[in-house]
Amino acid sequence: MVEQRFPASVYKSRLERAQKLTAEAGLTALFITPGPDLRYLTGSRAATFERLTALVISPVHEAHVIVPRLELAALRESAVGELGLPIHDWVDGEDPYALATDAVGGDIGRYAVSDAAPALHTVPLATRIGTGPELATAVLRELRMVKDQAEIDSLHEAGAAIDRVHARVGDWLKAGRTESEVAADIEAAIVAEGHTGAEFIIVGSGPNGADPHHEVSDRVIENGDVVVVDIGGPVEPGYNSDCTRTYCVGTPSSTVTEQYAILQQAQAAAVAAVRPGVRAEQIDAAARDILVDAGLGEQFVHRTGHGIGLSVHEEPYIVSGNDIALMPGMAFSIEPGIYFPGSWGARIEDIVIVTEDGCEPLNRQPHELKVV
Amino acid sequence: MVEQRFPASVYKSRLERAQKLTAEAGLTALFITPGPDLRYLTGSRAATFERLTALVISPVHEAHVIVPRLELAALRESAVGELGLPIHDWVDGEDPYALATDAVGGDIGRYAVSDAAPALHTVPLATRIGTGPELATAVLRELRMVKDQAEIDSLHEAGAAIDRVHARVGDWLKAGRTESEVAADIEAAIVAEGHTGAEFIIVGSGPNGADPHHEVSDRVIENGDVVVVDIGGPVEPGYNSDCTRTYCVGTPSSTVTEQYAILQQAQAAAVAAVRPGVRAEQIDAAARDILVDAGLGEQFVHRTGHGIGLSVHEEPYIVSGNDIALMPGMAFSIEPGIYFPGSWGARIEDIVIVTEDGCEPLNRQPHELKVV
Repeated sequence: MVEQRFPASVYKSRLERAQKLTAEAGLTALFITPGPDLRYLTGSRAATFERLTALVISPVHEAHVIVPRLELAALRESAVGELGLPIHDWVDGEDPYALATDAVGGDIGRYAVSDAAPALHTVPLATRIGTGPELATAVLRELRMVKDQAEIDSLHEAGAAIDRVHARVGDWLKAGRTESEVAADIEAAIVAEGHTGAEFIIVGSGPNGADPHHEVSDRVIENGDVVVVDIGGPVEPGYNSDCTRTYCVGTPSSTVTEQYAILQQAQAAAVAAVRPGVRAEQIDAAARDILVDAGLGEQFVHRTGHGIGLSVHEEPYIVSGNDIALMPGMAFSIEPGIYFPGSWGARIEDIVIVTEDGCEPLNRQPHELKVV
Repeated sequence: MVEQRFPASVYKSRLERAQKLTAEAGLTALFITPGPDLRYLTGSRAATFERLTALVISPVHEAHVIVPRLELAALRESAVGELGLPIHDWVDGEDPYALATDAVGGDIGRYAVSDAAPALHTVPLATRIGTGPELATAVLRELRMVKDQAEIDSLHEAGAAIDRVHARVGDWLKAGRTESEVAADIEAAIVAEGHTGAEFIIVGSGPNGADPHHEVSDRVIENGDVVVVDIGGPVEPGYNSDCTRTYCVGTPSSTVTEQYAILQQAQAAAVAAVRPGVRAEQIDAAARDILVDAGLGEQFVHRTGHGIGLSVHEEPYIVSGNDIALMPGMAFSIEPGIYFPGSWGARIEDIVIVTEDGCEPLNRQPHELKVV
């Protein structure tokens, strides 16, 4: 599959906004190392670790790029080449931190680094500058959280692709098969339906469903098992799907049916609560309150959701204590779950996009416990 | 494939040595986040990003672990469970940085974090502590660079597995096929020969071979192409192979033959220079001097090698300026290359283990340009 990116004009506009936000934050520089921030700002998929690659954003001049000469050809494929940003390449044995600070072109006071920047680079950079970094998230959050139309279109495409996979899960999920066998079928379908690859596959059957982060195992699925299937991956140019549905192999018990109905109500309540101006933590509370009222509060052991885009998990996090106000264009998951250790678990997850007066779910498969 | 780790006693001993080295370095704590250092010290393959997982090593008491409750079950599968290390789990909405600093159990003065620790965690930790971190590499380097017998056995196994793949490359590398098609065959063989998966696959044909970090493309391989094939991946419990051979589809030109012969001489000279006490930079010089003398210095655009183990790239780096003295048990690549932009490239790479009086190469396929 050919790697894609948006037209260079998209990155030009993002870089200009990042520069403006850097100035407004009173920072003298942002150092953006490989990861989702670099990809968002330049389209680069660089994944260097021990050799420094960094986009240096200044409030007063255009962005510069520091790159190991080995990676120069790949970097030029990103918008960096088309936009003609100044590039400083370096070879093994040279000091890339000197290049990075020189690219700022003046005294460095308060500066910030991307979330993903490893200590391997931030520590020598701090030593050279004489003070530690802040997080660039504060500057880039606003940019990255609110998706533009092209990003929303990509997220729609990803959502529809993962829905087509869930529509077929019943064909593969059968008593006598292992979770791993089912996962292999799902993985092939994730790619066949248009993803670049599977980013994660959870098939949590029976007691394994009670561990929210169980992936897959060689457990043989049995009749009567409740099975959590949480799957997703990127579609070009890099936006992710993430959708959970819960299945039952054969007829569910009345306890499962009753408790699942409460979960479904909680998920729907959280979706219904979404609109601009509501705080992220209020969406979490909308789901949690229903589960707590039904005596299932202890069973809901994680936050209600996470932002999604170039990263599967990014801001805004839908969690207690996050008072950020929702804005149109934000994209995040709403995924309450209930977990009974040693027994079973269930989760329902949709990605939603905040609209002017509510939200649009990107996942359209029915929310009911699906009997297969 | 079932994930493996060494017996818990191995990690117990590593943790004790890390504690001793922390004390000797005058540090009050090491914070080790997911990545190769955590895997080395505990066997944990945790890969959490936005939720903090950290092993907290103290010079005065046993190590503690901070972990999101969601990841608790997986963490207990590592040696952390068997060794009974104190575990502090946390749920969304709690402050894991308070847990991490509390686990130190006293004032924190100079402290260090693992290379891989992202700014997302090191910045709030530094804010809480009031000062920035040092790199734990300085403390852990000695431990991780010198491999014990079990690690050497794993590296041998990985080396033999990748040699079996190279032995078959001639079956797949044919004019008229694309690099991607060849890479798909190689990927299947990497797994079939005992790796957990392919970590990287470079098939650089013709002009693509002149980019040392080219991966694969849809370029159709032509008669007369020189093709760089650089491949590797982990075998359980996680030690990596990494081996490059250069092939020629049909008869090479006399220029290629002559220049390749010089490269082969350079690679052999570097291998011959390895013995305890020699500095890493001297190994780089041993290869480089021969290429420079032959007028090929400008064509050798990267360092001569890198350490290998749980990470494909780790210390010791075989690079100009690295004056670390080699010690028995160190494992690293020796991989000089020559690159002619727009035309062709060649590289020869073996992993070697430093012995009492020289080194033992782990890769045994012939070094000659292989005509296929």
